[in-house]
Formats: sequence, C-alpha cells, structure tokens
Amino acid sequence: MSDGRYIVGVDLGGTSINVGVVPYDGGSVLGMRSMPTDSDHGAKFVVDRMVEMIRSCMRDATKEASIPDDGIIGIGLGSPGPLDRKTGTVIETPNLGWRNFPLRDLIANSIGLPAELDNDANCATIGEWWMGAGKGTRSLIGVTLGTGIGGGIVLDGKVYHGAADAAGEIGHMTIDSTGRKCKCGNYGCLEAYASGPAIAARAIEGLETGEPSILPSLVNGDLSRVTAETVYEAIIAGDLYAKEVMRETARFLGAGLANLINLFNPEMVVISGGVTKAGEHLFEPLRAQIRRRAFRHAEETCQIVSSTLGGMAGVIGAAYVFRFERFEAT
Amino acid sequence: MSDGRYIVGVDLGGTSINVGVVPYDGGSVLGMRSMPTDSDHGAKFVVDRMVEMIRSCMRDATKEASIPDDGIIGIGLGSPGPLDRKTGTVIETPNLGWRNFPLRDLIANSIGLPAELDNDANCATIGEWWMGAGKGTRSLIGVTLGTGIGGGIVLDGKVYHGAADAAGEIGHMTIDSTGRKCKCGNYGCLEAYASGPAIAARAIEGLETGEPSILPSLVNGDLSRVTAETVYEAIIAGDLYAKEVMRETARFLGAGLANLINLFNPEMVVISGGVTKAGEHLFEPLRAQIRRRAFRHAEETCQIVSSTLGGMAGVIGAAYVFRFERFEAT
Repeated sequence: MSDGRYIVGVDLGGTSINVGVVPYDGGSVLGMRSMPTDSDHGAKFVVDRMVEMIRSCMRDATKEASIPDDGIIGIGLGSPGPLDRKTGTVIETPNLGWRNFPLRDLIANSIGLPAELDNDANCATIGEWWMGAGKGTRSLIGVTLGTGIGGGIVLDGKVYHGAADAAGEIGHMTIDSTGRKCKCGNYGCLEAYASGPAIAARAIEGLETGEPSILPSLVNGDLSRVTAETVYEAIIAGDLYAKEVMRETARFLGAGLANLINLFNPEMVVISGGVTKAGEHLFEPLRAQIRRRAFRHAEETCQIVSSTLGGMAGVIGAAYVFRFERFEAT
Repeated sequence: MSDGRYIVGVDLGGTSINVGVVPYDGGSVLGMRSMPTDSDHGAKFVVDRMVEMIRSCMRDATKEASIPDDGIIGIGLGSPGPLDRKTGTVIETPNLGWRNFPLRDLIANSIGLPAELDNDANCATIGEWWMGAGKGTRSLIGVTLGTGIGGGIVLDGKVYHGAADAAGEIGHMTIDSTGRKCKCGNYGCLEAYASGPAIAARAIEGLETGEPSILPSLVNGDLSRVTAETVYEAIIAGDLYAKEVMRETARFLGAGLANLINLFNPEMVVISGGVTKAGEHLFEPLRAQIRRRAFRHAEETCQIVSSTLGGMAGVIGAAYVFRFERFEAT
C-alpha cells in the first residue's frame, strides 16, 4: 500500500489533538493517538503537547511498519482558522486564544521536518475525499456539525481556498435574514439554528412553553443541561417532541445545504459531527427538504452522506495537505 | 490589437438577441447589432433570426476591419439554461419554450463554422472578467438583476460549472427560509426579494397600505404598472418611500452577496442589470449591509462594483467561451 514514504497528520481542535502517520499513497493510519487540547494551560503547553504526541506517534509508527529513518517526509497540520497558509500562521482562534501564531514553523523546527498548515474543516473534507465517503468524486463539500458549523470545499480534487484563504464559511450563511442572533454578530446564520448548542437552545425554548417531552427527566429537571446529545437520547427513547426538534433542524440545515447545491453543484455533501448520530431521524427529513429546495438537476446529481472517517478525517486530510502542497500544487 | 483571428459572440436572451465580432485577443467589438427575440414566433423563427444576424454581422465586421475570409474562426453562443454543454443542447428555457433543443449544432451547421455554447449569465460574467470590471482579477462572481437574478462564477479565469453544469443559481439562494414564495416553488429565494418584479411587488405592497409617495402619480394611479424602473424614477425625483424600497432591496441583496463572499471569498462581485441605474442609492446601503454580514477578512478583499460592459458583456463573454473551449481548456 505504501511507496515507503509517510506523512504525519495532526488535527488540532479546541477540544482534542489527534495525531497519526499516514502512508503517502493512502492506507491505514499508524500510531494514532488522541489527547485533550487543554488550551487553558496556554499556547506553549499546547505546542509542547503536540510535539510530544508527534514524536511518540512517529516512534510507534516507525516500529509498527518498519519505516526507515528517512521514511517520514513531513507533517501536515490542521488548525482552527482563519490562517495565513503562506506564512503558516494562525491569524486568530477564539477557542485557543491565539493571534498571529506561527504554528507551522514552531512544529517544523521542533520536529526537524517540513510542515504545511491548513484549516481543520478543509483537512477533514479533503480527508473524506481522499480515503472516506468522497473517494472517487471530483467535487464535494464537507459540513461539520458541532459547537459551530464548519465547512470545507473540494473542487477538482483540491481544497478551494478563495482569494484570501477565507472561503467555505458555511456556518455563517444567512438562511433567515431577520432571524436568530448568531455568535458572529449577525442574524439568521445557519450556525444559529443547526449547531449543537443551537439545537439545544431551540429544544429548551419549546420545553419552557410546556411542550410534553421526556427531555426534562433526562436532565433531572435542569433544562440548562439539555444538549444536542440529550435530544438524540430522547429520540432513541421515542420522544415525539425531540423528533420534531430534529425535523426542524433538518429544515434549517436543508435550506443551507440546498443553497450550497444550487451554488456549487457538487457531486457530494459529506456531513460529520455528533448530530449525525441521529441517523435517519436527521437524514430522511434533510434529504426531503433538499429535494424541495434545490434545483432538480443539481439535487439529483448530489449525494448527501454521512462521514465514514469520523474523527480520523482531520488527521488523514492534514497528511494529504502536506502531500498536495509539496508534490502536486502547481 | 488582433492577431488576425476573430470570434462571433452571440447573446440570446428572452427579450433580445445581441451579436458582435470580437478579436481573439480582445478589443473593440465589430459589427454589433441587437434585435428583439420575438420568441412567440417559435423556435425556427428565432434560429433563423440568429443566423441572419450572424451573417450580416460577419459581413459588416469583415469589411470594417479588412478581415480575410478565414479570419473568423468560430462562434460562441450564450443562451438561457439549463444546458448540456457537451452536446450543445438547451435542456429547457421557460422564457423561450425550448426543450432539448440542439442550438449549437443548428447554428454551426447553418453558418459553417464551429460553435460552443454556455449559459448566458456565465457568458456575461466571463465577459466582465476578460474585458470589463473584472479585468486582472482571478476570481469573480457576476450577479445580473433583471426579471430574474442570474449568476456566474469565475474561478482562476475559468467559468465554474459544477458537476453537472448546474452551478451558480444565485437567484435561488434561500435568504429567508420561511419567507416570500418564489416562482421556482420555494420560499425565501433572493430572487423573490431583489429581482425587478420583486422590487415592484414590494413597492406596491407598501403603497396599498397607504405609504405616502409620488409613485402612484407616475403610473396615473394604476399601481399594477409600477416597475423597478418607476421606483428608480421616483428616487431621482427625491421620493423618500422609493428610497426606502431601494434600501430594503439592498438589505436583501446584501444578505445574499454576503453569503457568496463567505462561501467563495472572491476578489470581486460585479452587479449588472437595470437596477444598477439606482447607483449609490443601491450600492451605498448594499456595501454597508455586506460589511455587517460578511466575515471581515473576506469582505475586505472583495470589491463590489457595477458592470462596465453592460449589454456587451454577454457577446464578449460568449466569444471568450469559444476561445477557451477550443484553445485553452485542458
């Protein structure tokens, strides 16, 4: 499966750091490990942890696959953005509290290998394109439903970055111009309706007006503890109100995805993140909504699927970013 | 200015047909002519008129620029869509009433020159990129505000078509998921708020609730005759209500353009169509709205400008489509 060359993939998130070694030509990830980011200990702590994880991952992988000393040729890094890819700098990450942080060179110099940096959502999307749900497609859009809604756009097998590395802000697409206030300051962003916290907030609003549901009993009556996860648990238990909250989520998400399909006409949309656990309770009304809203020709040529790599997508995609930037970009 | 080669550009619209001869390397359009489409006379009539216009345009241009007999090398055609570019077929045009119509080959065979076909909005956008407002940029989005809202996406100097030639349906982006009914059957499309007829409809709604305005006097009290053009006339005459209708248009359009900027991060958005006559009455609140809604980094790197080629953009872009498909596509 491997031509003897390997790349380290690093997926830095607000919650956890994932690291693995990926064969240049694809295949099983070696030495995979995951640790909490613990960003409240400061930037130096996080970078030290990343370096230590990369070193130990390389040791394990080298042993496991008998990789020669010069077999690992570089490091691909996925980080929350916005970023300046050219300088390898993280311009700003609210979750980590970094500003103009030269992440790429800090890691490259510590490990003694060249490195490339890209946005975490872009890495996850190109990972799904390379080895996951999107294998064999030429164009796909990745949508990550989590604390926020992240997006990556792959066109012709390349991450589409836009004129200033700022493309793909899927979560902040307006779907209701006079709608709910979003954390970004605007009104009616997709993220304000379909992110994890937004799903919980909508569920709580209904409970406060007396909607009958088992949800309060799942949080011992403390509604502030309702999360998207709790809504999912209630669905599994057959709760009708929780199902309605998920159908409503699908309506908002469907409007957003139909926009993407009408604009980009991609072969595939890959959805990842905790909310996909709801399975057909989400996907069935979601596909119906997209059929209703997107142009038939574009909708018929687009598959809406769940991520197959899950948490590995970011690591695999980060490794691919290194390969692409060093060996394939023109 | 010319290397001796010329291309005929044809812009077929629901209202008019425009034809001109364009130098291969760009420059002044020769033999330009425009006639009404008169589509109610049937497809044969329209094609015959196109062929006659192309022939007479070629005669004039050849004389004007002393073009040798083999100097005109092909024909670029812009048509309302959706299209199948590979077969040169118009799949469907509600305005012309065509279905699976082999426009490219009909024209090519009648004239005896090779031809290429693309969507009219794509042609107008690539025209602005080649010789108009977008000259020198690498990425731009064209938005045409007319009876409908059309869009074209140019990335890296190429029209972006998507997986099935269906990308760029800017007018049918949802900006209010529970909003106004659109002609396409959905709710809350940008076109339902900011197209010419939508602007008129919103203006009339306000007048019917008694908003003070000179608009009724401009149509002799017959509100059904209010158009976007009438709203523009009222603005010029200082009418406050008409100005408010245009500011509201800018709010809706701003939400749509901010979405495009957050998703594509283009260098430029070029706006064309009758509504741009409103000038700063439209552009000033439009830019303010985009600043409020789009991410700063993407918004700061994107110019919002008015078309400079106007009705010529489609002809020039159609000629470029032929050049690109025959000589530059890989």
